[in-house]
Amino acid sequence: MDATEFRRRGKEMVDLIADYLENIEQRPVYPDVEPGYLRSLIPEEAPEEPETYEDVVKDIERVIMPGVTHWHSPYFYAYFPTANSFPAMLADMLSGAIGCIGFSWAASPACTELETVMMDWLGKMLKLPEDFIAGTHGQGGGVIQGTASEATLVALLAARSRAVRMILASDPQRPETGITSKLVAYSSDQAHCSVERAGMIAGVRMKKIPTEQSDKYAVQGETLRRMIKEDKAAGLIPFYFCATLGTTPSCAFDHITELGPICNAEKIWMHIDAAYAGSSFICPEFRPLLNGIEFADSFNFNPHKWLLVNFDCSTILCRNIVFLLNRLFHLTRGTHWQIPLGRRFRSLKMWFVFRMYGLKGLQDYIRKHVELAKEFESLVRADQRFEISADVVLGLVCFRLKGSNEVNETLLKRINNGRKIHLVPCQLSGQFVLRFAVCARTTESRHIREAWRLITQLAEEVMQELPH
Amino acid sequence: MDATEFRRRGKEMVDLIADYLENIEQRPVYPDVEPGYLRSLIPEEAPEEPETYEDVVKDIERVIMPGVTHWHSPYFYAYFPTANSFPAMLADMLSGAIGCIGFSWAASPACTELETVMMDWLGKMLKLPEDFIAGTHGQGGGVIQGTASEATLVALLAARSRAVRMILASDPQRPETGITSKLVAYSSDQAHCSVERAGMIAGVRMKKIPTEQSDKYAVQGETLRRMIKEDKAAGLIPFYFCATLGTTPSCAFDHITELGPICNAEKIWMHIDAAYAGSSFICPEFRPLLNGIEFADSFNFNPHKWLLVNFDCSTILCRNIVFLLNRLFHLTRGTHWQIPLGRRFRSLKMWFVFRMYGLKGLQDYIRKHVELAKEFESLVRADQRFEISADVVLGLVCFRLKGSNEVNETLLKRINNGRKIHLVPCQLSGQFVLRFAVCARTTESRHIREAWRLITQLAEEVMQELPH
Repeated sequence: MDATEFRRRGKEMVDLIADYLENIEQRPVYPDVEPGYLRSLIPEEAPEEPETYEDVVKDIERVIMPGVTHWHSPYFYAYFPTANSFPAMLADMLSGAIGCIGFSWAASPACTELETVMMDWLGKMLKLPEDFIAGTHGQGGGVIQGTASEATLVALLAARSRAVRMILASDPQRPETGITSKLVAYSSDQAHCSVERAGMIAGVRMKKIPTEQSDKYAVQGETLRRMIKEDKAAGLIPFYFCATLGTTPSCAFDHITELGPICNAEKIWMHIDAAYAGSSFICPEFRPLLNGIEFADSFNFNPHKWLLVNFDCSTILCRNIVFLLNRLFHLTRGTHWQIPLGRRFRSLKMWFVFRMYGLKGLQDYIRKHVELAKEFESLVRADQRFEISADVVLGLVCFRLKGSNEVNETLLKRINNGRKIHLVPCQLSGQFVLRFAVCARTTESRHIREAWRLITQLAEEVMQELPH
Repeated sequence: MDATEFRRRGKEMVDLIADYLENIEQRPVYPDVEPGYLRSLIPEEAPEEPETYEDVVKDIERVIMPGVTHWHSPYFYAYFPTANSFPAMLADMLSGAIGCIGFSWAASPACTELETVMMDWLGKMLKLPEDFIAGTHGQGGGVIQGTASEATLVALLAARSRAVRMILASDPQRPETGITSKLVAYSSDQAHCSVERAGMIAGVRMKKIPTEQSDKYAVQGETLRRMIKEDKAAGLIPFYFCATLGTTPSCAFDHITELGPICNAEKIWMHIDAAYAGSSFICPEFRPLLNGIEFADSFNFNPHKWLLVNFDCSTILCRNIVFLLNRLFHLTRGTHWQIPLGRRFRSLKMWFVFRMYGLKGLQDYIRKHVELAKEFESLVRADQRFEISADVVLGLVCFRLKGSNEVNETLLKRINNGRKIHLVPCQLSGQFVLRFAVCARTTESRHIREAWRLITQLAEEVMQELPH
């Protein structure tokens, strides 16, 4: 395929994409296939001779679409949102064509530099403290990672490096080997599994801090203080605490204004994982949720979740730690702050999206999702058979039928088997809970009401089947 | 921007991309900007109100292009190639629109399943042993990573997990803490820096095995055997060896037929990093370079380097280790074999490229690059002032002016400042060497000859300036 054919096929693909997204709500949101469905639909080996583009394109509907979970359907309420916007897609097309690999400044100066400036734009949108902004001389700033998993791992590695260096500085005779096995990291028992996994990868102890429903699943300062004290008494070295703002199960918020000073006093690196909720902090009314950031060493969230920048675009912002990450990875500013060395020109997506929506457009989008969640919450609250399981702060509603876990499990199974809407569950204090997350860019009030109509209809069926 | 406007803007972007790639050789391949050039060209903050698409697009030439290193110019000979093909770009557009996050089977069955089957296609193209193929019941198979850095890290983590389990199985009383600090991993001193970094991340000792020019920079079995013996005598536990096929400096090949049996006998995990060279093994004439794969536990290479699949697409294939990676990351087949949890629908790119080129088309492409490298080698060899610094096996030619490092450094600086062609250097046995890598899909013999004309012209200038 040469550039001339690409002009034709590319335009056809643009139409295919527009058709797909315009008509997505007509598709069943959750696929009706069994594991292994795809293998029998295509050959066992790559072809020897080229096939035509027509052959390939017609297989999109035959092979791929039957097995797609349609994350951008307005009837998709599972997990958390993943971003999808036209400006981001256009920028990503350009990124693919430029196809530079930004592993150093010289490998493509524009790639490194636009990223540094976009992270400053982001930091200012979030009203972060000055030392999280690179500017022209700053020690802080940010970098784009692929995912929050990588961001929390990078933060933990930087914390490990700082801890080892501090220990050696205070006791130069101490052998370096063995220090790591004494280090202990903390996070909430509500934290994302990738936080624990980061500890496994780095080979450090990782302790989960228990939370309670009565505390709205927030880590309590008292609990953290007690665990630190016990671990120090046992000869361990607390070095890292990952706070979560907006947990995956219920969108709970750790109280970083209380936890931050404890970490600072103990020289524990405080990292904040706000993968989902972070985007909302661009709205003044949600920004107080980030109060306490001034005690943190690093902060990550995913514009690719809720800020209209297509995956992958997970951002980490740090203060005064360039030198640490540089020593860890021997690097120059704005590059290599990550596990992979290669990287796409991902900041183009941020640039296109921020400019074409403007801060106001992005705020409107966040607010609309929160309003839709509140609308769903009202519908649930108005129905005596249901209960709300956690405070609705942003775009997630945790709810359940009053009754057993079993009846709720049956309800969820019925909902997903219907394939008209898609939800996933969570466990909260031993209860099986349904999570309703407003996800798609195109979700409107009518979709929320239709979803609720389906849920209540299925709930009635399920309850009628219950033994009396 | 709605779907209607996207239809228009998307088609304009397709033309912009085609124009860029059709005319890329008219641009200076290496940008003429100073660090920090971009910041002053754009505002310090994101706009409050939306801008128009025209505003954004006109800034591509004003802000971005002056700072782009054009990796797809036929005059780009730096680093190693990064893939760029029209079928891959079309597939990636589709991937962006579907925008599913494949972190589990249910999150998008097509994403997980196409990936598993594409990895089998790849394994068969490479004629890998049967136990590297998943099929319907296999224990082996492959998965797409973002980069080779992640692939080597994942392999090392799996090896660490296996080693710890074997040690605990043979000595159940032994405390688990402290084992990691006894583990030792090996790689060539020619290995990519990400291999050493993987060891740093995982917190294990990483030893570099010295190589010699006289051995063509290949790790010698004798050296590996001696290091293992010494380390065991010192109470350490050898557990991982990363062999390199096609090193970054000179495209050297470790002799895995000799090294593999040593690793197997010592229960050391042998991983093979063939990031660049791996793609060439689809050609029968280069496949012997992979002989010895039967001794390996895992193998990675980057279709996003030399197999026309745009970044990011780094593949790792493993045998009989599903259970290990699963235990490490608690997972189901084909998902989560990686550091990030989220992932794009990357196998679409492989599917489009393999079908639209066919195996023969891909082989032709590899062979053409190798021929162009051989052509460049002949030009160098025909000029008495120059010497070839390492065997030319694939698409990389290492060469230098006979003379001091200083004169070669001056020559390279002159070449890159000319901005007509772009090369990077390497160090081989203390010598400053120029690397000429055939990179772009569109490089032809005329570009090679033009590059050589420029190099000799600048070499003459440099030599005339030398003090007599």
